[in-house]
Amino acid sequence: MTLDKAGIRSKFIGEFDELVKELVEILTDYKMPQEAIDWFVKSLNYNTPGGKLNRGLSVIDTYCILKNTPLEELSGPEYKKVALLGWCIELLQAYFLVADDMMDQSKTRRDQPCWYLVPGVDNIAINDSFMLEGAIYILLKKYFRQDSYYVDLLDLFHEVTFQTELGQLLDLITSDEQNVDLDKYTLEKHSFIVRFKTAYYSFYLPVALAMFVCGVTDEKDLKQAQDILIPLGEYFQVQDDFLDCFGTPEQIGKIGTDIKDNKCSWVVNQALLKVNPEQRKVLDENYGQKSDECEAVCKKLFKDLGIEQTYLDYEESVVGDIKKQIEALDESRGLKKQVLYEFLGKVYKRSK
Amino acid sequence: MTLDKAGIRSKFIGEFDELVKELVEILTDYKMPQEAIDWFVKSLNYNTPGGKLNRGLSVIDTYCILKNTPLEELSGPEYKKVALLGWCIELLQAYFLVADDMMDQSKTRRDQPCWYLVPGVDNIAINDSFMLEGAIYILLKKYFRQDSYYVDLLDLFHEVTFQTELGQLLDLITSDEQNVDLDKYTLEKHSFIVRFKTAYYSFYLPVALAMFVCGVTDEKDLKQAQDILIPLGEYFQVQDDFLDCFGTPEQIGKIGTDIKDNKCSWVVNQALLKVNPEQRKVLDENYGQKSDECEAVCKKLFKDLGIEQTYLDYEESVVGDIKKQIEALDESRGLKKQVLYEFLGKVYKRSK
Repeated sequence: MTLDKAGIRSKFIGEFDELVKELVEILTDYKMPQEAIDWFVKSLNYNTPGGKLNRGLSVIDTYCILKNTPLEELSGPEYKKVALLGWCIELLQAYFLVADDMMDQSKTRRDQPCWYLVPGVDNIAINDSFMLEGAIYILLKKYFRQDSYYVDLLDLFHEVTFQTELGQLLDLITSDEQNVDLDKYTLEKHSFIVRFKTAYYSFYLPVALAMFVCGVTDEKDLKQAQDILIPLGEYFQVQDDFLDCFGTPEQIGKIGTDIKDNKCSWVVNQALLKVNPEQRKVLDENYGQKSDECEAVCKKLFKDLGIEQTYLDYEESVVGDIKKQIEALDESRGLKKQVLYEFLGKVYKRSK
Repeated sequence: MTLDKAGIRSKFIGEFDELVKELVEILTDYKMPQEAIDWFVKSLNYNTPGGKLNRGLSVIDTYCILKNTPLEELSGPEYKKVALLGWCIELLQAYFLVADDMMDQSKTRRDQPCWYLVPGVDNIAINDSFMLEGAIYILLKKYFRQDSYYVDLLDLFHEVTFQTELGQLLDLITSDEQNVDLDKYTLEKHSFIVRFKTAYYSFYLPVALAMFVCGVTDEKDLKQAQDILIPLGEYFQVQDDFLDCFGTPEQIGKIGTDIKDNKCSWVVNQALLKVNPEQRKVLDENYGQKSDECEAVCKKLFKDLGIEQTYLDYEESVVGDIKKQIEALDESRGLKKQVLYEFLGKVYKRSK
């Protein structure tokens, strides 16, 4: 029986419940008191599923393409291992998001209060974020310790985690809400931030993990994948920045706040390249202010500067480049163009 | 030339400056903008050295004992690798302390403001703590990727990190300053907290790391070391709890605050075993209160209950047991009693 999208998702979520049980067993073996086990289980369930799960699911998609086997024909243990890697990315994301929400003082995440705002949690959320990351390595050890590529999985998670933290650091010190200073913004910094903070763990990591399990591990192939997926991830984030400003709430499922939050967004960086001194003054006075009026002034300026057309030109150009790169991909050692086309298809012309 | 204690320490600190340079090179290769590199360097230097460095230095001590070679006779590259492992423990400690200080809302650490209180840092300290941990794996990969035991080092750091986080979690949810409830305290929980939060990373980790580098890696030997070092680490923490209450500020170099902070300390747990209903009422009313009077009432009660003698009895008993265990240690595969005696010697009858 072929699973539809909802079926694929619910099968994947079913695995998470199993993983939580296995983590509980490990804590029970440590003789961890029950109240601490209950706390950790609550944190795992509150913070890990509940998002779109794109990153986790794309490990499985990629694996099926590389193996040329439909999802329904994977054996139970085979599915379990690949799904586990998907959940490890979702745990990594949970680790980042719990902390990011504290650092940004966000109020809600996935239509519920941020974890640190749940009564009784507060700053304990810092340690909870550590434990979400810790769970990754406990699970990887349980499932992959015997595999020749176990050490490669660990290196990959370490490197991508560190890269994401580097991106987050640059983002945090660039978008200082207390001291709005547009001189700090450049397109180069924007590119570094989005590649490091988003593209490595959201685009490269799922594919690289699936490649290791399939034995497609030549350095050249990892580089081929990375050279396409990082620009693709950057394009995804540029699109996100664009939609935050120009998308309607119905389109994007939320209300954009980048202008009020003084974000180092692609939109403001493009505007900075185009403004005359007068317009720059308007931008300095209105960007990063918490008022609707200032936000409207910025939006009007962005429209006047033709940022929408700039975006459409950028999109056509970057998608054209990526398609050319995919076409030129060397499939001789097992990597497949279709893996990259799937990712491109999910991003191109999406609205949310 | 034989190095004295200060010489050993300054040689070790010299290595740290090298490691910071190497991390900068790696970030430069990533094309990380300069202001973010400067930030990371500042965080590394502010948070990593500056403590007693006991954990880091004991990796080197243990290595020299196992190799039966004095420090001065280690080759340059040999010293560098062992010192690096020492610094990885200090980085792990820095990662925990930056976060612990935020969770405890501490004000100072090592005679300077806590990192999150340094102007401009604030909640960015959460991401900085992540990066201190991340540096461990960047460095381990650079120095040990080619070694057969590289994967064992990674597993060991992961396991010990997670154990420490488990201990921290139980400590945080047990010592809730908003809701003082002594019914939550038991000696079993105290034992779990101190073993997990302190003993694994402070006592077992340095020895296990040195053992891996020396090739003393039989499971039986790791277990022999752990079976002695974890109780020893627990004893160290019990002593810390005892001195917090009964030591003078001159003795311990700080003013104890466990009573006011509602800590699940060994002292209050022992008291809870001895109180009559009237004394229990006194404890309920005065423990965990932020006043000097309440603290004095608790201290007097602890004296009346004879906790000092209980401590001395505990110390003689646990040290006796540990000595017996060390004497019975099987040295046939390369582990040495002297490693454990060194640790015991550093803890027994110390005043700070």
